[in-house]
Amino acid sequence: MSDSVNKNRVEVCFAPCDFHQYEEGFDLVVVIDVLRATSAICTAIEHGVKGIIPVATLDEARELQKEGYIVAAERNGAVVEGFDLGNSPYSYMNPELKGKTVALTTTNGTKAIRIAEQKKTVVIGSLNNLTSLCNWLVEQKRDVLVLASGWKDKFNLEDTICGGAITDMLIQSGQFISDEDSSVAAKFIYRSAKENMFAYLKASSHRRRLRALDLNADVSYCLTPNNVCAIPILKDGILVPLNEVAEKV
Amino acid sequence: MSDSVNKNRVEVCFAPCDFHQYEEGFDLVVVIDVLRATSAICTAIEHGVKGIIPVATLDEARELQKEGYIVAAERNGAVVEGFDLGNSPYSYMNPELKGKTVALTTTNGTKAIRIAEQKKTVVIGSLNNLTSLCNWLVEQKRDVLVLASGWKDKFNLEDTICGGAITDMLIQSGQFISDEDSSVAAKFIYRSAKENMFAYLKASSHRRRLRALDLNADVSYCLTPNNVCAIPILKDGILVPLNEVAEKV
Repeated sequence: MSDSVNKNRVEVCFAPCDFHQYEEGFDLVVVIDVLRATSAICTAIEHGVKGIIPVATLDEARELQKEGYIVAAERNGAVVEGFDLGNSPYSYMNPELKGKTVALTTTNGTKAIRIAEQKKTVVIGSLNNLTSLCNWLVEQKRDVLVLASGWKDKFNLEDTICGGAITDMLIQSGQFISDEDSSVAAKFIYRSAKENMFAYLKASSHRRRLRALDLNADVSYCLTPNNVCAIPILKDGILVPLNEVAEKV
Repeated sequence: MSDSVNKNRVEVCFAPCDFHQYEEGFDLVVVIDVLRATSAICTAIEHGVKGIIPVATLDEARELQKEGYIVAAERNGAVVEGFDLGNSPYSYMNPELKGKTVALTTTNGTKAIRIAEQKKTVVIGSLNNLTSLCNWLVEQKRDVLVLASGWKDKFNLEDTICGGAITDMLIQSGQFISDEDSSVAAKFIYRSAKENMFAYLKASSHRRRLRALDLNADVSYCLTPNNVCAIPILKDGILVPLNEVAEKV
């Protein structure tokens, strides 16, 4: 395969439980949870939130709340009782959060971030920051593993579409190849979904879940590519704007 | 969802390691390993092999060999040294195997069968027996879980296409629905692949593996829908022709 010489790999891992099968050799991971954790994180950083502390459990979230942090907590699509914020991207546009650090725990996304944090570089992806993220990834000249958060460790459609979008864009740059069937499938799924993702996801289990919670506006927002430029990056356990950390990550 | 009343579910599980997340509530499992274990098993039963004993490990296979069984063993696409047969479907058309019982161990497929065997009914699917299998499944009026063997517990494209074909055909019967995103994705992938599966799988990791072993004829055979009618079913640990077991399984 002479055309693969000097190219980097981009691969998609469908769920955190599969991470151990895919992570070998990668030190740059993109975590995605399109509905809605990573879309909310990208939006928060874009709108001036200083940092997001990803927290895996509600107990940890309550501890940070006691310490005085603003704490956001979502489970099964709803804000958890006792917390002010969930993971609706719109709630992170609130000017009162500007310059503040927020702790966040969600059903899937924050757990995936914690699983990825053993790696040298962890950045946050979504359809919202797709082009800006991919442009940056191309510049890095490193292998890229996209970790989909899935739904309770199961494959989900919306994260796969986003992983496929990243894969497609990186391969089109001419700098990347994919080896894994999961990455090839994600790219195929993205290509057949991209003209009308909202309709394509009609059958998705999580969209049905959010529709029952009357969150269609959130879904529309999360499925809109390139409405933010921010690339959140994990630095000492906190997600901060990429442009605020050292040039070489 | 009033249209789901009285319908059965058909779901696709991408790999044996995910089985525990999908199996609850199902007592009918279709195991598929398109390249090539379940294609070979369907072909063997179609061509008069009396039964196939699925064996998970090479050690078990060697034990059965000592006991005088005809034993087939494949690992990583090749026949294992010391065994006469692998999992090429063509090798099971040999008239000398007619009426014989063969023990078989393969990289992925036989392990998946062993994982599924806790269930009441385990049948073998492939593209080769697609229509005959789906017609039978529709008659059963039971929920159907399709277990893809994958590649070493990873998602693979060819099994997903076959799982999607089964899902598509069952849903088109009007008797089935799917809830899981994996099933929806498998159906989408099948629909975009079905006109030219051979070309679609060009990028698949296992097809590349078999091409290196010069097994393109096998791949073509395995990707040909409906060239056999046999439905192998697991009965007391042996895969036998469905029409030889009791009407009600």
